[in-house]
Amino acid sequence: MTQETLRDFSTRWLPAIESEMRAMLSGDEPALAAYYGMMQYHMGWLNQTFQADHAAAGKRLRPLLCLLACAETGGDPAQALPAAAAIEILHNFSLVHDDIEDGDETRRHRATVWVLWGEPQAINVGDGMFALAFASMQRMTGHKVADATVLRALQIFTETCVALTEGQYLDMSFEQRGDVTVPEYMRMIQGKTAALVGASVAIGALVGGATPAQDASLQRFGQAIGLAFQIQDDILGIWGDPAVTGKAAGNDILRKKKSLPLLHALNDAQVGAQFGALMAGDIGPAQVTQAFNLLDKAGSRAYADGPERAA
Amino acid sequence: MTQETLRDFSTRWLPAIESEMRAMLSGDEPALAAYYGMMQYHMGWLNQTFQADHAAAGKRLRPLLCLLACAETGGDPAQALPAAAAIEILHNFSLVHDDIEDGDETRRHRATVWVLWGEPQAINVGDGMFALAFASMQRMTGHKVADATVLRALQIFTETCVALTEGQYLDMSFEQRGDVTVPEYMRMIQGKTAALVGASVAIGALVGGATPAQDASLQRFGQAIGLAFQIQDDILGIWGDPAVTGKAAGNDILRKKKSLPLLHALNDAQVGAQFGALMAGDIGPAQVTQAFNLLDKAGSRAYADGPERAA
Repeated sequence: MTQETLRDFSTRWLPAIESEMRAMLSGDEPALAAYYGMMQYHMGWLNQTFQADHAAAGKRLRPLLCLLACAETGGDPAQALPAAAAIEILHNFSLVHDDIEDGDETRRHRATVWVLWGEPQAINVGDGMFALAFASMQRMTGHKVADATVLRALQIFTETCVALTEGQYLDMSFEQRGDVTVPEYMRMIQGKTAALVGASVAIGALVGGATPAQDASLQRFGQAIGLAFQIQDDILGIWGDPAVTGKAAGNDILRKKKSLPLLHALNDAQVGAQFGALMAGDIGPAQVTQAFNLLDKAGSRAYADGPERAA
Repeated sequence: MTQETLRDFSTRWLPAIESEMRAMLSGDEPALAAYYGMMQYHMGWLNQTFQADHAAAGKRLRPLLCLLACAETGGDPAQALPAAAAIEILHNFSLVHDDIEDGDETRRHRATVWVLWGEPQAINVGDGMFALAFASMQRMTGHKVADATVLRALQIFTETCVALTEGQYLDMSFEQRGDVTVPEYMRMIQGKTAALVGASVAIGALVGGATPAQDASLQRFGQAIGLAFQIQDDILGIWGDPAVTGKAAGNDILRKKKSLPLLHALNDAQVGAQFGALMAGDIGPAQVTQAFNLLDKAGSRAYADGPERAA
C-alpha cells in the first residue's frame, strides 16, 4: 500500500469508525442523556452543555491499524469495524480514568471529564465506556464473523485490558520509587501502551483471515510500533519544540516524569548520581539546562532514538 | 430442591467458587504482587500487609444463584463455574469503585481499598477486576461450553455491565435532586442491583440448557429477586435492629438516603411536604423520631413490604 492509498484508506474509513463509535455511545433513554452526554463530550462530539461540537479528537491510530491489518490479510475492513470501534472506545475509557489518576485537568485543550462533573461521575463514565467497548466487540457476530473468531478476538481484547491495568499500576508505583530501571520501564510501557497497539493489529488480522502464526507475528509487530510510539513521545516530552508540542521546553524534566531518557541518565554509571541529586531538588530553568547537559553526557537521547543511532 | 439440599449445595460449591476466583485474581509476576494483593485484600483473602487473612466476605449470593440455575435446568454446575466467578468478581469491581464514588471508608469492618492505597490505585484495581471478570467468563470455552453459548452469555454479561453503570449514574444524579419519584427509583435499582442478579440466573440457566424463552423468564425471576433484595435492604436501613445491622437506628434517615420508603413518604400527598421540609434541615434524634412518625402516617413501610401487606 503506497502512502497515497494509505491516505485514501484513512479518508474512507475514519467516518465509518466515528459512526460505529457513536452508535455504541448513544443511549436513547431521556433520563440517561447526561450520562451518554459525558462520554460524547470526552470523544469531542459534544461540548460541556451537550451541544454539538467538533473538538480535536485523537488520531484514531489504533482503529485504523485494526482495519488496515484486516485489509492487508485479505479481509473486508467492514467486518472488523466493531472491533476497531471497541479498541478506540477502550483507549478512551483508559484516558478518562488516567486523567483522574494523574490529576490532569485538561486534555486536547478542554477540561477533563472529572473537572467538569466530579470524580465519582467520571469514574463511572469510564466504567460505562469500558463495558460498551466489550459490547462493540460483540457486534462482530452481526457482521458475519464466525463465533470462534469473535471469541478469539475477545480473548486478545480481554488480555489487553488486563495488560493495560497492569501497566498503569506499574506506572503509578514508579512515581513512588527512586530506583526504577530501564527494563522495568520497558515492561511498564509494554502494558500501558504497546499491548493495545499490538491487539489492534492482531484483531484486525484475525478477522481478515490470518493464520495463528501470522497473527502472533503481526501482534508483535504492533507491539513494537506501540513501544516506538511511546519512546518517541518520551523524546518529544524532553526535546520537543514548544511551538509544536504546546508544552514548555524540557517539560518532562520540569514534571520529573520518569520517561525512558531520564531513566537512562539516572542509571548511567558516569552521571547517574549527579543526575539523581539534581532531580531530587526543585527544578527551575537553571536545573533544566543542567539536566539537558547531563542527558547529553550520558547519551540518553541517542539511546532513546535507537541502537543504530546510539552505535 | 429442599432447604437441606440447598445448604448442601452451598457447602459443596462455595469452595469451588472461591478457588475459581482466586485463580483469576492471582498474578505470577513479582512486580505485580501488590497489584493483585490489593484485589485479594478486597476479596478478604489477604490483610493490608498482604498476609493471609480470612475476613468476612460477601454471601456469594450471585454466583450461587448462577450455579443453582445451571443445576435446575439440567446442567453440570462445574461448567458454569467460570461464569459464577466472573459474576462475583464483577460485583466486587463495582464495590471497589462505589466505595470511592460514595466516599465510604469501611466495608465489612475493614478499610476500603482507596483508603489504604489512594484513589488512583483503587480506580485501577477496580478496572483490573472488571477486565478479569471478562477473562473469567471466557474460561467457559475450556469447560466444553459451546462457542455460541459462551457468546450469548458474554452478551448478557456485557448488557449487565452497561446496566450497572447506568444505575450507578442515576443513583449519583438522584443525590443532587429533591424531586425523585418512586418509578425513577425503581428504574435505578433495576440497573444498579436487579440486572446482575437477573444475569446470574440467566447465564447459569443458559449453560444448563434452558431454551431462550425459559432463559428470558428466569432472567426476569432473578431481576425480581434483586429488586426484593434491594428493597429489603432499604427497609433494614430504616427499621433494622442496630444490634443486628451494626448501624444506628434510622441510619438511612440520618444519612438522608433516598431509598424507597423515604421516597414514598416524600411523594405522599398528605405528609410529603412536611417530610420534605424535615429532611431539608439538620437531622438529629428528635428529627429521626418525627421522620418515623411521618413514615408511619404515609404507610411507607407497608408500601415497601409489598402490595399484599399494603392492601
